[in-house]
This record gives sequence, structure tokens and C-alpha cells, in this order.
Amino acid sequence: MFDRFLPKEYNFFGLLEKQADYAVEAAKIFKEAVVTGSMSEETLNKMQEVEHQGDDVTHSILDQLDKTFITPIDREDIHALAKEMDDITDMLCTISSRMRIYKISKVDKHLVEFGSIIEESVLGVLCAIKGLRDLKNVKTILKACVEVNRLENAGDKKRDEALVELFETEKDPIAIIKWKEIYQEAETVLDICEDVTNIVESILVKNA
Amino acid sequence: MFDRFLPKEYNFFGLLEKQADYAVEAAKIFKEAVVTGSMSEETLNKMQEVEHQGDDVTHSILDQLDKTFITPIDREDIHALAKEMDDITDMLCTISSRMRIYKISKVDKHLVEFGSIIEESVLGVLCAIKGLRDLKNVKTILKACVEVNRLENAGDKKRDEALVELFETEKDPIAIIKWKEIYQEAETVLDICEDVTNIVESILVKNA
Amino acid sequence: MFDRFLPKEYNFFGLLEKQADYAVEAAKIFKEAVVTGSMSEETLNKMQEVEHQGDDVTHSILDQLDKTFITPIDREDIHALAKEMDDITDMLCTISSRMRIYKISKVDKHLVEFGSIIEESVLGVLCAIKGLRDLKNVKTILKACVEVNRLENAGDKKRDEALVELFETEKDPIAIIKWKEIYQEAETVLDICEDVTNIVESILVKNA
Repeated sequence: MFDRFLPKEYNFFGLLEKQADYAVEAAKIFKEAVVTGSMSEETLNKMQEVEHQGDDVTHSILDQLDKTFITPIDREDIHALAKEMDDITDMLCTISSRMRIYKISKVDKHLVEFGSIIEESVLGVLCAIKGLRDLKNVKTILKACVEVNRLENAGDKKRDEALVELFETEKDPIAIIKWKEIYQEAETVLDICEDVTNIVESILVKNA
Repeated sequence: MFDRFLPKEYNFFGLLEKQADYAVEAAKIFKEAVVTGSMSEETLNKMQEVEHQGDDVTHSILDQLDKTFITPIDREDIHALAKEMDDITDMLCTISSRMRIYKISKVDKHLVEFGSIIEESVLGVLCAIKGLRDLKNVKTILKACVEVNRLENAGDKKRDEALVELFETEKDPIAIIKWKEIYQEAETVLDICEDVTNIVESILVKNA
Repeated sequence: MFDRFLPKEYNFFGLLEKQADYAVEAAKIFKEAVVTGSMSEETLNKMQEVEHQGDDVTHSILDQLDKTFITPIDREDIHALAKEMDDITDMLCTISSRMRIYKISKVDKHLVEFGSIIEESVLGVLCAIKGLRDLKNVKTILKACVEVNRLENAGDKKRDEALVELFETEKDPIAIIKWKEIYQEAETVLDICEDVTNIVESILVKNA
């Protein structure tokens, strides 16, 4: 009888984890492509598929947020997490698409390293998000956050190194235009991962 | 006597509609310019005039938000709508200004198509915003939102097509720099339109 | 005995002023470098040092926000101010780093002027932030906000002028890529300063 007064059981943690899973899948597809040395049309299609699935989960989260007053953690944190994790997958999809558009046929060592750093970072995001459900292993969560932060710094360095080499060795301005954008976008993925873990850390502080 | 306890009559809906009207005006000016084939100084001046008028409305909305506790829809939604709609007009003004700075004297078919897609999308935004006032025609609002979403996807495709052709056919790197920026900014207008309708959809869900 | 119920004394105003101080320091380092004509490694190191110190203050503010319910001004305003002021210092550090990466060995008159405009604008930000503590000198605060707004417009004009000259006179596309980015980022610093003073103005209205 009073059921209607009880909050519906919205599964925010499950949905956030699902988003993180898709981000990990996108990072794995990206890494494999750069290790292989090129972005095939088939791989890009797979990436876009993952991106669409991630979009659906994002919409579910935002929709459920709008339908309930009661959330397990601050609603603006859920909103921000959903948006940022969507951005991770989106950005990986954008880079993959640019690689096709620019007909990048040979991937350089910097992008291969970015592939690994990004995968590690997104795995850190997944770990931090999984910890939110019960906040029992605060140490594990914090360790993941620190790691994502470290990887963002590593990515900054990598991008700077890559740009220095690009401007020193590449004489074709059109190639510079293409690679500059790809390196900068790769680094942006790591910035977004850090945004996610910053939100997670803030949730930890508020629930301490 | 109790007047002072009553909320002042702030006309948020009217102001938001005015912003949408200015965005439509900017989109029409932009479309006409690209159809004509170039951005004259006179046209740019008209665009900047509209942009300033839009700015004034944005400031009015934000100012009134700060002065009242009572809003007809969530205050953060009004804030976000005002900011995003301001961004539509701003971005159209930026592209127009860049066309002058880059001395773009001949507009290509891709930008002409962007002109049409953008106009349609901003008209969709206007329709969705107008529906907010009484939420009576939810179907009409939702139809506009779906349309704006469709146009954003169309814009993504258009930008990718335009970039592929640009990098395949243009051999002058300086021309690539100019056009790459213009195409990407044109697509950004459609992203912002979609941001507006996402907020409108969220308002619908919360008021369902 | 009731101490535990009293809000801890968090020093939000002091921390925000400290952030503004670091932004001023970054602006002064930047201006000196462009006046000197180049960004030495030593100067970049000094800039990065300031950026790290600014980061620490930002983290302190966000952390204290998460730990308290009671704030002297709206918590979302403190949050936004902290983020925007962090962005000022970050962006100045990014431009400085790019100047090294791009081996910019001779600074042009436009960047020198940007150096002055940015310094003036960040000093306006500091003045506005300092006024928040007691809101006694609303006129002084508003004057600073108007000035920061004026400088943002001046920066827009400067960037457009610089781009026109760049595309008219520079024939090396790689030099265009570098300088275009630097001018646009320099203008972005002024945008962020204006974002700060917009928040300050909004705080004034809410506390009027």
C-alpha cells in the first residue's frame, strides 16, 4: 500500500559500472588498433558500436536521475560521473574516426604508448567506480585515483615529447596538423579519466 | 500588503524565447551568407549586432535568477539553457568572424549544407523552448528534440565527409587549417543545439 | 561543549585570495618572458612551480568544501571560482610550455600586448576576489569586474588583429599552426578571467 511512497530501486551503481565497462572496452579496442598499427574500418565500426551502447547507458542514468529524488550519492556527482565517463568513450571514438579520416596508415611509438597509458587509466577508473557501491575498500579506491592522476601526468609528458619530436622531424605541415590533433586528443582522454577520479575522491571525502 | 511576500513576476519563459529568437536570427544570417557565397563586412556587423542583443538577454536571465528564489522550472536548468543558447549565437558569430579573417571568398557546398542543417536545428531549439511555457504539447516538444538530435548526427557525418574531401583534395596546408576549423566549428553549433534539447527533455521527465 | 556543532572555521576567502595571488604571479612571469622576447627553460620551470602551488590551493578549497555544510557564500560559487582561477594559471602554464615546445625564439608585438592585457586582467580578478571577504566596497569590486570585461573585449580584438596579420604575412604553414594556437590560448586566459568576474558579479547580486 505504501509502496508508492518508497523510492523506486534505481540501480545507479550498476549503470555507472556498465559505463566504466564500455570505456574499458573502447580503450582495449583503441590499444589493439594502435598496436596493430592502423585503424581498420571494421575496428572503427566496433568502436562506434561501443560508443552507442555507452550513450544508451548514459541516457538511462540521466533519465533515472530525473525520475527520482532519492539517490545513494549526491545527484550532481552521479550526473557528473555519467557525463565524464560518456566523454571517455566519445573521445576514443573521435580519435579512431580521425585516424580513418586522416588515412593514418602507420602508427608511431608515441601513440602506441598512449594506447597503453589510456588502457591503464581507464582500468583505474573502473576500479574507482566499482568501489563506490559500498565504500568498504577506501584504500583500494584511493590507490586507483592516485594511479589515474599519475597516468595523467605521464600523458602530459608523453604529449609534450611527441609534439617536440613532431615539430622537429616532420616537415610536411599537413602531417603535423593531423598528428598534433591526435596526440592532443589522446592526452585529453587521460584528463577526462582524472576528472572522473576527482569526483570519486570528492564523494569519499563527503562520506568519510 | 502581502505583495512583498509574493514572488516577483520574472518572465523567464519570455526571455528564453527571446534568446532562441536571436539564435534563429543568427542562423538565418549565417545561412544567407553561405548561400550567397561569402561573408561581407556588412553581414558580419549584422551578426555581431545580434550577438550583442543575445548577450543582453542572457545577462537579464542570469541577473533575474540571482534575484529570485522562486523559478517556474529548476533554476539550474534555466541557467544552463541561457548559457547554451548564448553559446549558439556566439559560435555562429565566431565562425562568421573567422570567415572574414581568413578571407574566405568562396564557400563550398559542405558549408552551404551546414548552413541549412544549422538553421533547421536552431528552429527545432526554438520550438522546444516555446513548448516549455505550458508543457501542454509534450509531443510537439519531443518531436523537436528528436529532430535536433537527428540533425546533430547529420552534422557529424557532414563534417567527416567535408574533412575527408578536404584532406584528399586540398594541397595547400594553410587552406586546410582554415577550413578544418570552420567545419569543426559549424558542427559544434549542432552539438550545442543538442545540449539545449537534452536539457529540455530532462525538464519534461522531471515534470511528467 | 557545543563546539562540535559549530562550523569549523574554513578560510575560503583566504584560499581564494591565495589562488588569485598565484594567478597574478603566473601572469607576471608570462609578461616578463614575452617582454624579454623568449621563454627560457628557467622561466618555464618557475611557471610550473607556481602552477603546482596553485593546484594545491585548489585541492584545499575543494576538499574543505566537501567537509563542511556551511559556507560564507554559495558553495557552487566557491567551487566555480576555485576551478576558474585554477584554469587561469593552468592556461598560462600551457602557453609557456607550448612556446618552449615550438621553439618560439622571438616574440612578436601582439604577444607582448597580450602579456600586458593578461596581467591587467588578472590584477582585476585579484581585486574582485579580495572584495568578496566583506562586500563593503561593492563599487570597487564592480569597477574591477567592468575592467576585466573591457580587457576581454580588447583581447578579442587583439587576437583577431594578430590572426589577420599572421595569415596575411606568414607564408610558412608550420609557423601559422604554432602562432595561431598561442594567440588563441592567450585570448582564452582573458575569457577565463571574465568567467571569474561574472561569478563575482552574480555573488554581489545575490547578496544585495
